[in-house]
Amino acid sequence: MPNQERPIKLGLFLIVDGSHEAAWRHPDATSGRGMEFKRYVDIVTNAESNFFDFVFLADTLGITSDNLPMISRNARTECYDPIVLLSALAPFTQAIGLVATASTSYNDPYQVARRFASLDHLSDGRAGWNVVTSANRFEALNLSNDDLPPHEARYRRAREFVSVVKGLWDSWDDDAFVRDKASGLYFDPSKMHVLDHRGELFSVRGPLNIPRPPQGHPVIVQAGSSEDGQELAAATADVVFTAQENLAEAREFYARLKARLRHYDRSEDDLIIMPGIFPVVGRTQREAEDRFEHLQSLLHPDVGIPFISRLGGLDLSGLTLDDMLPTVIDVTNSSRSRQELFVATARRDSLTIRQMFMRFAGARGHLQVVGTAAMIADCIEEWVSTQAADGFNVMPPLLPGSMTDFKDLVIPELQHRGLLSSAVGAGTLREKLGLRHPADLSHAPATQ
Amino acid sequence: MPNQERPIKLGLFLIVDGSHEAAWRHPDATSGRGMEFKRYVDIVTNAESNFFDFVFLADTLGITSDNLPMISRNARTECYDPIVLLSALAPFTQAIGLVATASTSYNDPYQVARRFASLDHLSDGRAGWNVVTSANRFEALNLSNDDLPPHEARYRRAREFVSVVKGLWDSWDDDAFVRDKASGLYFDPSKMHVLDHRGELFSVRGPLNIPRPPQGHPVIVQAGSSEDGQELAAATADVVFTAQENLAEAREFYARLKARLRHYDRSEDDLIIMPGIFPVVGRTQREAEDRFEHLQSLLHPDVGIPFISRLGGLDLSGLTLDDMLPTVIDVTNSSRSRQELFVATARRDSLTIRQMFMRFAGARGHLQVVGTAAMIADCIEEWVSTQAADGFNVMPPLLPGSMTDFKDLVIPELQHRGLLSSAVGAGTLREKLGLRHPADLSHAPATQ
Repeated sequence: MPNQERPIKLGLFLIVDGSHEAAWRHPDATSGRGMEFKRYVDIVTNAESNFFDFVFLADTLGITSDNLPMISRNARTECYDPIVLLSALAPFTQAIGLVATASTSYNDPYQVARRFASLDHLSDGRAGWNVVTSANRFEALNLSNDDLPPHEARYRRAREFVSVVKGLWDSWDDDAFVRDKASGLYFDPSKMHVLDHRGELFSVRGPLNIPRPPQGHPVIVQAGSSEDGQELAAATADVVFTAQENLAEAREFYARLKARLRHYDRSEDDLIIMPGIFPVVGRTQREAEDRFEHLQSLLHPDVGIPFISRLGGLDLSGLTLDDMLPTVIDVTNSSRSRQELFVATARRDSLTIRQMFMRFAGARGHLQVVGTAAMIADCIEEWVSTQAADGFNVMPPLLPGSMTDFKDLVIPELQHRGLLSSAVGAGTLREKLGLRHPADLSHAPATQ
Repeated sequence: MPNQERPIKLGLFLIVDGSHEAAWRHPDATSGRGMEFKRYVDIVTNAESNFFDFVFLADTLGITSDNLPMISRNARTECYDPIVLLSALAPFTQAIGLVATASTSYNDPYQVARRFASLDHLSDGRAGWNVVTSANRFEALNLSNDDLPPHEARYRRAREFVSVVKGLWDSWDDDAFVRDKASGLYFDPSKMHVLDHRGELFSVRGPLNIPRPPQGHPVIVQAGSSEDGQELAAATADVVFTAQENLAEAREFYARLKARLRHYDRSEDDLIIMPGIFPVVGRTQREAEDRFEHLQSLLHPDVGIPFISRLGGLDLSGLTLDDMLPTVIDVTNSSRSRQELFVATARRDSLTIRQMFMRFAGARGHLQVVGTAAMIADCIEEWVSTQAADGFNVMPPLLPGSMTDFKDLVIPELQHRGLLSSAVGAGTLREKLGLRHPADLSHAPATQ
C-alpha cells in the first residue's frame, strides 16, 4: 500500500506539443503558434492546479542529428533555453516546482550555481536542476569539442561539478544578509564562507554573489541510469528520473539504487525515484487505443531509421525499416542505459526496426499505458506499492489535450485511492517532495 | 539641434537600490526587501511607461573584491543572474528593451547565442546583449582561471565569440519554420544554414536549435572604451555605453568612434553612442544638492580606499584617505579606460583619495549633474546637439525614488523640447533605436 504520509510525486515532462514524436501534427496541436510563450503558461498553470509537484524541462545543446529527413520533421528543433523559459514561468506560478536541465560537460559550476540560485530566489524556493552530462556528439560539435568526451570522463566531471555547485550554494548562512541601514552593514562577514575549491578539473574561489537559495540547495535531479549515472545519483541526487518499461526491472532498479545510498551515509527517503510514464487515456479502452493509433498514424516513415539510430545510439547504416537489429552491437558512449533497453526489448520481442519505431515513438523507452483511468491508476498504484517507484514523471502524448484528459480522468481516480493529495501543496519544492532542507555551514567550522 | 526623426535614446542602468554606492542605506530605499522580484517589476514597468528604450543590467561573475570592510557594506554582493531576471521581466513588459550582460571570456558562443535568441523570442524582439570581457581578477578565480587573461587576449576572444554568435543567429532564414501538419514538414530544409565555424578559439557546427530571433540579431551593446574596446564596438556593436565626464572629451570620443565605422563598411547611423548620466534632480538647485549631500553622507569611510582601488584598477596599499594618488601608476589589465579617467581627473583637480571617493561614489566616472530638470535637460540637449551623444544611459541615484523625480520633472522637459517622443514606441528594440534588421542568409549563397 502507498505511504499515506508521503503521497506519490508527480512531475510533468514538458514538451510543448506533447511527448509523442508526431504530436505536433495532430489536429488539436497548437504547434502553429511556435515559440509563443502563452502555450507554456497554459500548460504549466494547468499542471500546477492539478497537483503536479514539478514541471521538468529536458534539453540538448543543439539539434542532435544531421539527418535532414528526420530533423526537418521534428518539432524539437525549436526549443527555448530551459533557464530562460522557467524564469519567465516562475512569476506566473505559485506552487509548482521548476526543474531545468543544465549540462555539467559544457558549463562552469559558478554560473550554474548562480543561475539556479537565482531561479530559486525568483520562485521562492521552487527550483530544481536536472544534471546531465550531454550524451550526444552534435552537442560536442557545437561546443568546440571534436567529439563526445568518454562516458567515464563525463561522469567524473559531473561529480566534481555538482560538489562545487553545492559548495557555492553554501557560500552564505541562511541569515547572512542583514541589510542594516543604521550600521551600514549589508551582510554579516562572519556568515560568509569562501569555498576555495581546488580540484582535478575546477578551481573556484567563491563566494557566490547571491544569498543562499531559499531551499538551501535547489533540488538535484539526475536521469542517467547507467552504472556511472546511478553512482552519481546515489552520491548527489534528490530525485532520479529513469526509463523503465516493466515492473520487475523497475523494482530491481529501485532496490539497487536505494541500496547504494548507504555508501554515502544517506537514507532511502533522501532519494525519490520517478520513472517516466506515457499514459494514453480514454473513457474506454477502445477510445484510448484509437487515440494512440491516431498519433501513430502521423509518424512519417522517413523518421524511423534515424529516430531509432539516434535515441538508441545504434549504427543502422545500410538497413531498412523491415530489417532486424544487427547481431553485434557496439556499446555506445552516448545514452548507455537507453541502448541496453532498446536492444533487449527488440531481441525479446523479435522486433523489426519499423516495429521498434512504432514501439518507442511515444514513450521512448518509458512505461507506456494505453487504457482507461482505472487501468492507469492500477498501474501507478502497483508500481508505488511494490517499491518500483515513488512517483512518476508524466509524459503526456499530446499537449494541451492529454493534460485535460489526465486531469478529468486520472487525477480524480488517484485521489479517490488516496494516492494523491486533494490540495495543492504549499512551500518549497523540497517541502513538497518531503526532502530535508540542507543545513547551512553555521554549525560547521568557519572556513573564513 | 537634435534630429527630430531620431529622438534621443534613453536606457535605464538598473541597480535595484539606485546607482549611488550608499543608496541602499537611504530611508526611502527598499533594500530591506532584498531579492524580492516585485522591486524589479515596479522599476522596469515605470521606466517602460516613461519612454525609456531599454533597461540595462550590468553584471560581474562574482564579488569583485576580497576586501571585507568594503564588500560587507555593498548591496551589489547580492545580484540576480541577468538572464534569469530579464526573462522573468519580459512577460511583465510590452515595449521596453531588455539588455543583459554576458561575458565572452567565461561562456561558450553556442549557449550565449541560444539564451539571447530565447529572450528575443520570449519578448517579441526586445533582447539586447551587453558584450563584456570580464575585467576583474576575482571573476577569473571563480571560473577556474589562475588570473585575469591579458587585455588583448580577452578582446581577441570577444571578437571571434561575437562573430560566432551572429553566425548562429543566422542558422535559419526568418521564415524557415513552416510547421506544416499536412506534409509533416516542421522546417524547410533549404532554409537551414549550418555555420561550421572553425576559428582560432572556437569550433562550432550549428545550427542553433531555436528559430532566428525576431530582431534577426538581438541588439549588441558594448561598454569598453579602451582602444581594443572601441575597435570591437566599431566592428560589432549597435550601441556603445561609455563613461564620459565632460563635453569636450565626449565629443572627441564620439567623433573617433563614429569614424572607425568606415573601416567596417558601416555608416554612422549603425552605432548609437550613449554615455552614462547620473542625474540628481531637484525642484530647485538647493533641493538637488541637498539630496546629493544626503546620499554622500551615507558613504562609510571604510569603503573609500577599496572602492577607488577596485574601480580604478589602482594599487593604493599603504595609503590613507587623505593621501594623493602615487606619482607612478601601473597600467591596469582590468578596466583600462576607467583607470585613465580616474587618474586624469585626480591629477587635474588635485584630489585626495577621499575626494576621489566622494567624486566617483555616485556616477563612477560617468557624467554627473546635480540640479533642476531644466539644467539636466540643458546638458542632455547640449550633448546630443553637439555630437557628444545619441542618448544617455540613465543611472538614477536612488531607486525607485529618483525614477519618480525623473519622470515628473525631466521627462516632460525633454518632451517639451522635442527631444523625446510622447508615445511609448512600439516594435522591436532595433526598431525603437532606429537600427536596421540584419537580413537573413536567404539572399546569400546557401551554406548547406
